Amino acid sequence: MTRSTAFDDLTTVLGQRATRSKSELDQHARSETHFPPMPPDVVVYPETTAEVAAILRICATHGLPVIGYGTGTSLEGQAQAPHGGVCVDFRLMNRVLQVNAADMDVVVQPGITREALNAELRATGLFFPVDPGANASIGGMASTRASGTTAVRYGTMRDNVLALEVVLADGRIIRTGTRARKTAAGYDLTALFVGSEGTLGLITELTLRLHGQPEATAAAVCGFADMGDAVAAVIDTIQMGLPMARIEFIDAASVTAVNGWSGTAFPQTPHLMVEFHGSDAGVREQVESFAAIVAEHGGTGFDWATQPEDRRALWAMRHNAYYAIKTLRPGAVALVTDICVPIARLAEAVSETQADIAASGIPGPILGHVGDGNFHAILLYDAADPAEVARVHDLSHRMVGRALAMGGTATGEHGIGIGKLDYMEAEHGAAWDVMGSLKQALDPGNIMNPGKMLRQGN
Amino acid sequence: MTRSTAFDDLTTVLGQRATRSKSELDQHARSETHFPPMPPDVVVYPETTAEVAAILRICATHGLPVIGYGTGTSLEGQAQAPHGGVCVDFRLMNRVLQVNAADMDVVVQPGITREALNAELRATGLFFPVDPGANASIGGMASTRASGTTAVRYGTMRDNVLALEVVLADGRIIRTGTRARKTAAGYDLTALFVGSEGTLGLITELTLRLHGQPEATAAAVCGFADMGDAVAAVIDTIQMGLPMARIEFIDAASVTAVNGWSGTAFPQTPHLMVEFHGSDAGVREQVESFAAIVAEHGGTGFDWATQPEDRRALWAMRHNAYYAIKTLRPGAVALVTDICVPIARLAEAVSETQADIAASGIPGPILGHVGDGNFHAILLYDAADPAEVARVHDLSHRMVGRALAMGGTATGEHGIGIGKLDYMEAEHGAAWDVMGSLKQALDPGNIMNPGKMLRQGN
Repeated sequence: MTRSTAFDDLTTVLGQRATRSKSELDQHARSETHFPPMPPDVVVYPETTAEVAAILRICATHGLPVIGYGTGTSLEGQAQAPHGGVCVDFRLMNRVLQVNAADMDVVVQPGITREALNAELRATGLFFPVDPGANASIGGMASTRASGTTAVRYGTMRDNVLALEVVLADGRIIRTGTRARKTAAGYDLTALFVGSEGTLGLITELTLRLHGQPEATAAAVCGFADMGDAVAAVIDTIQMGLPMARIEFIDAASVTAVNGWSGTAFPQTPHLMVEFHGSDAGVREQVESFAAIVAEHGGTGFDWATQPEDRRALWAMRHNAYYAIKTLRPGAVALVTDICVPIARLAEAVSETQADIAASGIPGPILGHVGDGNFHAILLYDAADPAEVARVHDLSHRMVGRALAMGGTATGEHGIGIGKLDYMEAEHGAAWDVMGSLKQALDPGNIMNPGKMLRQGN
Repeated sequence: MTRSTAFDDLTTVLGQRATRSKSELDQHARSETHFPPMPPDVVVYPETTAEVAAILRICATHGLPVIGYGTGTSLEGQAQAPHGGVCVDFRLMNRVLQVNAADMDVVVQPGITREALNAELRATGLFFPVDPGANASIGGMASTRASGTTAVRYGTMRDNVLALEVVLADGRIIRTGTRARKTAAGYDLTALFVGSEGTLGLITELTLRLHGQPEATAAAVCGFADMGDAVAAVIDTIQMGLPMARIEFIDAASVTAVNGWSGTAFPQTPHLMVEFHGSDAGVREQVESFAAIVAEHGGTGFDWATQPEDRRALWAMRHNAYYAIKTLRPGAVALVTDICVPIARLAEAVSETQADIAASGIPGPILGHVGDGNFHAILLYDAADPAEVARVHDLSHRMVGRALAMGGTATGEHGIGIGKLDYMEAEHGAAWDVMGSLKQALDPGNIMNPGKMLRQGN
């Protein structure tokens, strides 16, 4: 059997760092997703780019699927192995290779997590801002074009990856981009690989843009009578050019969950959670301007946290909202939706979604990155009840339809994987075929993360 | 002859908007570049996307080259026709299709110029910030991934194009991206087409990110004893997180030219020209912080312009620097270099370049976008003197070598075209082959702007 020969070849290169142990396969069969386990045939732990290239040459020879793996926190099944194959776990390639403080960039291996990176950067006065919530690996974040709470100010992975080293399906090693801040030299391959979910190659090194740790930070929560007021306040804030570092929305149902989990006592109405970064005077001015906007829209209960521990508590509350919400229905599986719409349509998108969820009888608190027009409904369903499974998929399906009709996207930040595959045609039309042509050009054998993102079975 | 049949076909679709008049061919043979004229065989003026698709189907049938044309302000020969063919001039497709003020985006046709766009936007309180100096067309700016003086704050075309409509080589019409602020839905085709210089398709519609017109603006010029001090001040400013809207460097030789042209009397030393955007108080604070940094580095002669007419005069001076410099050697041809390096290497890159220019005996004032690490030497040479032509190309060649050795790029913003083709291999290595594979996948007949950017003759 070719997979067995392939395993011998992998063992020759990696020794015990190639494994078929059941526990390792099981562990790499899952990620933070509602999909059932899909185990690979082999897990490998490369330590160098040369080893990654050797792995890919072996897989190309044997026609074996290759799946990159970081921390398994992707939500759409990107790291799972529907066709088996070789799971390339990057945990041993987790070093900071170069900190260029004056240039405000850093060169890292893909397996480092964002928290580990920021811990290493602390003394430099710089930080890497992209924060998807989970302590994901940087390689995984690049592969899924992750973003999260700070994208409104600092951008997504698209904006913060300057250069890559990538191993292609045939084992060739390429470098895309440079450490220069901008370039007009040819096709933007860096942007092509960022968000390609391992379907074009494996990322083995990343050069990231860093930002200065702000002199002052202030964060706050405030409540609104309804969703429309909260969004109107956000639109005014953006239009005034106030440089929010974070602006998050949580609906009344989420507030209930958060109060239960964190012991807080916020009124059960929609809330905004915001953060400003800047100089002392700058933050003070931003806070005042924002407070005035909030007051105009009837916002109340303003409480500013300028101490690091208070802010940490506030954002821990936000990051834990997912777990808090899950306790609303013990034993339920969570399907997390991820649509993103032009911001003027956001209030409409959220209220239509809320009405739809209410009618379904399925618990589905909503929270999201309101500055980007991106929000998540956390739909809690009983996976053993086929009728409920059908209802939850209908809900999710209607949300995507709503987003596309409003000029938005099926996924703001979680990516396609298996979970959003069925919407590629609707969102992209003929452009999906173009993606297929690019895939075919770089991976004619379709060994790179097959079953994800692209049209299947061609 | 196939070109004559093709012309008949084009005339059937476009009537008199397809032309072979010598004056039109001559006019489209040139751009703002040092290359000799390279005329197309036909010039066409489409009015709709459907017409562009018809043009491309005709060209595909006849195997004719297709070259997109905006205002002819590209500097590396992108809009010229080394293999003849059909020049598609977008001047009639120059409308604003949709202003979405609450979403801060706009949908435009490719032929609109940036100044015309901003004139239409004035009443909305919004503006499109990318400013390459020339009043270029938005389609051309996207195609060359243009940037300019404001990129340090607002980013380049890469950062400000949300979505595109593109006609492919076979006449298929695709849409990339959406009006949502971010998306993780598949390959970033928008980023692939931005900067592809018309080699993958023709852009027929663009959705652009807009920004709020700042409440307050302040601009200033200040002098430094030497280049190193000026760059050190810039690095400190960036590291402090001061949000400069513009920060431009002009060397002593450029100051001489500017004084001569604009009647100013700046001391003949390196200068920085800066601009801050923000609230009244915010700009005041930024100005104070910047002044303190400048003083630390021995900067002098600070003069703040907060009145619109003073600022306009200041930036007109900067934008006219190219013409001012050209008067230093009447009749000379200007070769404008465009390297971009990590900012910590900038002072070194500029001083080595200055020494090299001085040794060559060729006038070559330097100015550039110091916040991005990008600068231009304007090399004034006698095109009739083969020895001088050789010397100027050697100079340019060494500059690119220096940039690549420092981890930079051959071109920060002017693109590849014909002029930087010889550096693609050195800058990208095997990644250049990957670009070739993508090109082959989307344009197997090589009709889209042949002779530019990609490896030739394969």
